[in-house]
Amino acid sequence: MDYDAQLDAAIGRLHDEGRYRTFIDIERRNGQFPHANWTRPDGAEQPITVWCGNDYLGMGQHPVVLSAMHEALDATGAGSGGTRNISGTTVYHRRLEAELADLHGKEDALVFTSAYIANDATLSTLPRLFPGLIIISDELNHASMIEGIKHGRCEKHIFRHNDVAHLREILEGLDPAAPKLVAFESVYSMDGDFGPIEQICDLAEKFGALTYIDEVHAVGLYGQRGGGVSERDGLAHRIDIINGTLGKAYGVMGGYIAASERMVDAIRSYAPGFIFTTSIPPAIAAGAAASIRHLKGDDALRRRHQEQARVLKLRLKGIGLPLIDHGSHIVPVPVGDPVKCKMISDRLLRDNGIYVQPINFPTVPRGTERLRFTPSPVHTPQDMDRLVKALDALWSQCALARQSLSA
Amino acid sequence: MDYDAQLDAAIGRLHDEGRYRTFIDIERRNGQFPHANWTRPDGAEQPITVWCGNDYLGMGQHPVVLSAMHEALDATGAGSGGTRNISGTTVYHRRLEAELADLHGKEDALVFTSAYIANDATLSTLPRLFPGLIIISDELNHASMIEGIKHGRCEKHIFRHNDVAHLREILEGLDPAAPKLVAFESVYSMDGDFGPIEQICDLAEKFGALTYIDEVHAVGLYGQRGGGVSERDGLAHRIDIINGTLGKAYGVMGGYIAASERMVDAIRSYAPGFIFTTSIPPAIAAGAAASIRHLKGDDALRRRHQEQARVLKLRLKGIGLPLIDHGSHIVPVPVGDPVKCKMISDRLLRDNGIYVQPINFPTVPRGTERLRFTPSPVHTPQDMDRLVKALDALWSQCALARQSLSA
Repeated sequence: MDYDAQLDAAIGRLHDEGRYRTFIDIERRNGQFPHANWTRPDGAEQPITVWCGNDYLGMGQHPVVLSAMHEALDATGAGSGGTRNISGTTVYHRRLEAELADLHGKEDALVFTSAYIANDATLSTLPRLFPGLIIISDELNHASMIEGIKHGRCEKHIFRHNDVAHLREILEGLDPAAPKLVAFESVYSMDGDFGPIEQICDLAEKFGALTYIDEVHAVGLYGQRGGGVSERDGLAHRIDIINGTLGKAYGVMGGYIAASERMVDAIRSYAPGFIFTTSIPPAIAAGAAASIRHLKGDDALRRRHQEQARVLKLRLKGIGLPLIDHGSHIVPVPVGDPVKCKMISDRLLRDNGIYVQPINFPTVPRGTERLRFTPSPVHTPQDMDRLVKALDALWSQCALARQSLSA
Repeated sequence: MDYDAQLDAAIGRLHDEGRYRTFIDIERRNGQFPHANWTRPDGAEQPITVWCGNDYLGMGQHPVVLSAMHEALDATGAGSGGTRNISGTTVYHRRLEAELADLHGKEDALVFTSAYIANDATLSTLPRLFPGLIIISDELNHASMIEGIKHGRCEKHIFRHNDVAHLREILEGLDPAAPKLVAFESVYSMDGDFGPIEQICDLAEKFGALTYIDEVHAVGLYGQRGGGVSERDGLAHRIDIINGTLGKAYGVMGGYIAASERMVDAIRSYAPGFIFTTSIPPAIAAGAAASIRHLKGDDALRRRHQEQARVLKLRLKGIGLPLIDHGSHIVPVPVGDPVKCKMISDRLLRDNGIYVQPINFPTVPRGTERLRFTPSPVHTPQDMDRLVKALDALWSQCALARQSLSA
């Protein structure tokens, strides 16, 4: 058995399809984000502007967050030293969970090492708590939800993206007595479109199903206190389990669920992905809690964020670039070809110091490759000018299609 | 469908079996570990000594680690702001991976958010890289390895714990042409026994199998530079994939694999659990790298750690306590009953300020419930005196069996 040859073949397939990825080594300078340094493959450094990060509000450099982390490091040290059950629960973790429960108006919350593992561990454990559970899942749900549902080995059905008629059709066909759960997202990160939360809640209620929403691209960003789209639309009380991240708008790391006390109690007691892993460092918990607390009161920052997205979309439309626009903070520009997508990204980075990662399969379906811009309140008007000009020039050089201005 | 009743039933089962767990809220004081404060359920604070942490060497409060984290926070901010492929690769991540590759004498390394997800993501992805892969797994492998193997949905065989004759028997029965992988640990954390690394490598070589070792309870602690038992025994070059953690001996957080360049390249390109998750914060990477670097040169600390374990075991044997002793740094005292185990732990904590978590099912098999002590170089002789005296008194009060002193 020639294992090396098999590995070479697996890697070769990625090269053949034009979707082999190389890491871009960057170094953010605290206080200067989205400006950063890129270490080029030849070792030279080049200043760049990051246009594809998920630190949507620049909270990763907010003094409130950093000082909370410094303080916790000084007070308590680096790691937690254990799993949550074995010496790894600290007052920092409890405070963070109280902050999250309050954010979503839920009885309790549970912090995981990432939102990926929060989805995976929770969704794979629910079928053990509700024997015979049927999960009905939006077809564009995040990889971590798909993995979690797969790992739960229960009956599952996929409904067409955001298609509530299809969801209803599926629910009508299921045993009325069986436990059910509808799993979906509030903001789908690759198109930036919103899930039909209210309609899904109506159907779930009608058919006696639990609701599970992934709000990772919405928490901190939507709602009067940053509780996500479910807060903005006044629907959080109708969602049984809200999943969110501390690593995007909140600028730190980790993930969580917020739910009823007994739901959280059951998940923390049964989920291997929660039980058997070292808890997040107290300093991370402290930074995340400070970020959540701050953003509960800083609705102005959220408004500036939305404004930046609106302006960028207007300007890109103004030069005729194709755009997927669902009114969210995410600005996807479809290219539709992995090789061209990577070429534009490479030239933006190398020639213009503009960093936007090409998004290829498996993150998006083949044929829908795109550049995905994430404007933030910390991007300056000059940053945006440079981006629009560079894209305009590249679109001409690469002879890519433009939309008519009336489109 | 009464979902609440189902949750109550699931939680009730844990109460009925005496294995419902409550979190113990502690707050470590930097520089004073293993001394900490316990916030009692009634809100009062009580000073305690932690005897069950996995910060085995106290590196979580080492100035070298803390100053590296402070510096990185100041220089670059809190979170990485993205997945490794999308703006979340920084020079801190690369330096950490270089440090890890060097530690294990491998070409490359890959950092995950935890060793749990490193095991889960890697083991579940290998069957995609080697179609037809058969995994042969030690029966006492960690939950994260079991989950990863399950998620990979390939053919699997379980060999009796550390039983190389059984492993050979299984290997002999398999198709010689099929790709195979033997997965095991170097130190099994609940009994503290060692895996027969050399014999397993011999068998793997003979039968053309890859080797996968989990060294999470050994990295930093064994080997001239902390490369684990595989370094101590001069066997690292015979292991294809080494899994380790940054959250135990290294005192911070995160996990990794170290392997050949093409193996790492394939895993990072194919594993959803790696691709779709925010990378660890640069400050965490910086702290972990500083810890690894320090421990490469501090063999004296490792010797003091082993010495502490030897002394504690001698003293517990001296008062006739049952003990599982395989010569490692872990000191398990079997109780064999979940209710008694929890009672002793509760009284140690409440009456003596000694924190040792009862280890019950599913962390260990039913009937093998135990107290698991983790003496460290930062425990003082007085700490140990208090522990031995308290255990001696409780063993009498609870009328628990003692071993004859000659045992």
